[in-house]
Amino acid sequence: MDEKISEKRAAYLAEDYSRGFIRHCQFEPDVIRKGYFQSKVTIKEHHRQQDGFIHAGVMATMADHTAGYSAFTIVSEDYQILTIEFKVNFLRPAYGDSLICRSRVIREGSQIIISESEVFDSREGEETLVAKAIVTLMAVQKDKLEL
Amino acid sequence: MDEKISEKRAAYLAEDYSRGFIRHCQFEPDVIRKGYFQSKVTIKEHHRQQDGFIHAGVMATMADHTAGYSAFTIVSEDYQILTIEFKVNFLRPAYGDSLICRSRVIREGSQIIISESEVFDSREGEETLVAKAIVTLMAVQKDKLEL
Amino acid sequence: MDEKISEKRAAYLAEDYSRGFIRHCQFEPDVIRKGYFQSKVTIKEHHRQQDGFIHAGVMATMADHTAGYSAFTIVSEDYQILTIEFKVNFLRPAYGDSLICRSRVIREGSQIIISESEVFDSREGEETLVAKAIVTLMAVQKDKLEL
Amino acid sequence: MDEKISEKRAAYLAEDYSRGFIRHCQFEPDVIRKGYFQSKVTIKEHHRQQDGFIHAGVMATMADHTAGYSAFTIVSEDYQILTIEFKVNFLRPAYGDSLICRSRVIREGSQIIISESEVFDSREGEETLVAKAIVTLMAVQKDKLEL
Repeated sequence: MDEKISEKRAAYLAEDYSRGFIRHCQFEPDVIRKGYFQSKVTIKEHHRQQDGFIHAGVMATMADHTAGYSAFTIVSEDYQILTIEFKVNFLRPAYGDSLICRSRVIREGSQIIISESEVFDSREGEETLVAKAIVTLMAVQKDKLEL
Repeated sequence: MDEKISEKRAAYLAEDYSRGFIRHCQFEPDVIRKGYFQSKVTIKEHHRQQDGFIHAGVMATMADHTAGYSAFTIVSEDYQILTIEFKVNFLRPAYGDSLICRSRVIREGSQIIISESEVFDSREGEETLVAKAIVTLMAVQKDKLEL
Repeated sequence: MDEKISEKRAAYLAEDYSRGFIRHCQFEPDVIRKGYFQSKVTIKEHHRQQDGFIHAGVMATMADHTAGYSAFTIVSEDYQILTIEFKVNFLRPAYGDSLICRSRVIREGSQIIISESEVFDSREGEETLVAKAIVTLMAVQKDKLEL
Repeated sequence: MDEKISEKRAAYLAEDYSRGFIRHCQFEPDVIRKGYFQSKVTIKEHHRQQDGFIHAGVMATMADHTAGYSAFTIVSEDYQILTIEFKVNFLRPAYGDSLICRSRVIREGSQIIISESEVFDSREGEETLVAKAIVTLMAVQKDKLEL
């Protein structure tokens, strides 16, 4: 896969990434390449659960949303990306002060796109893989937003 | 399964349900029975994505967390519930003004508990099934919090 | 959903169900309705694993294939069904003398169809739910067999 | 992870791999290392579906069983491995003359082990990734075979 996308497109996707629920979760775009999207979040109290661990829903949302944006990097601008389904495994407890999510397209279809997301917990500069997801996405022309 | 749990335990779980990230998401407990937990959320702008639909991460988080609490209703009080993994399918676009999540235990093991969550979108009093999840959970004694 | 499909279509799907790998596994069609497909298999030694339990792969294959045929009951005859992905949970050990799989369409889209499969283990006339799957399928016109 | 397991253990696992349903499917062990198991199968007519493609159930069974054996490589000899659940995505049509499955442990717990399986279709000496699975496994002492 050609690694480049236009600077304009990357800037658009970076801008578009953090709206609504994602802004509420304070996730931010980090690195954008063709077929790849990386995001990050600085962990605050409202990302945790009662026992201090980062909530599974934070990691799941990040894995899903970032996977969606990895798919955005390979479709043309008049396409929208929908999540059909995802599955996420929580591999280790997450309790660090930031998370990084790396999403890669592993199947580049014209309609069905599959991406894989890995969420890393950053603790004192060291990264630990804490969650892994496979996400099934669908590219739909913006004027035909019906699965 | 006996449908009853003690009032004291139900009150504890209701109180415990909405902390940290879940409070940030504004999810609330609704109905609690043995093997069953129902939650709800009134949708605000910060639950949506750019196009006005409710974000998949909102539904996924609700499906996961509520499933976890359905598991809490069948274990003794010195047990903690961890999510090992979940899978969620998004069946129809969600755009209503509230969501209801109904989670039921479908496998009651001493360690491994499986629950199913259904998320309904409420639009003008009518409910539509918008997401369905299967969640694998683990019951761990509080003083042995290691998978 | 209208429960009826034509006798001719039901006969075609019943005939079509058991070919190749499915014939090798000796799965058979059982009940066919619109949006619903039920299959069965008599368990032999070659369905088991070393310890006498029925192999997870038998249940997974049955859950997938039967889900695919539940989707066939709602599309027109010039459509092919492909499995995009599935997830299956094994709820209890299976060791009976036959399995029954019941698959229901839970999302009827023009392209993306979601079905749910439940596999029951039959032991001395009693049924036990042993596996549950969610299957994401795609309907593709036969002359456009490209995802 | 130390890459070595004893020759005796590797020989035992290789022997143990192909019984019951797996022998019926004609899958064979190929490469065995600590935390890694590779298997293969030569495709015959009975692995295909009506349209000539390799059946999803063949790939799913291979992904599950090989993942289970990757887990066997990291536990002591008195432990049994059970599949709790798995999810598999079918990335591209498989129609080659053999399949190779590579399974790696990605979470090494004392009870819960997570492995990832990749299934490759071999066509005229070239390999194509056709399916990817995440498998949640449980290590249980042989004399306590209850989840």
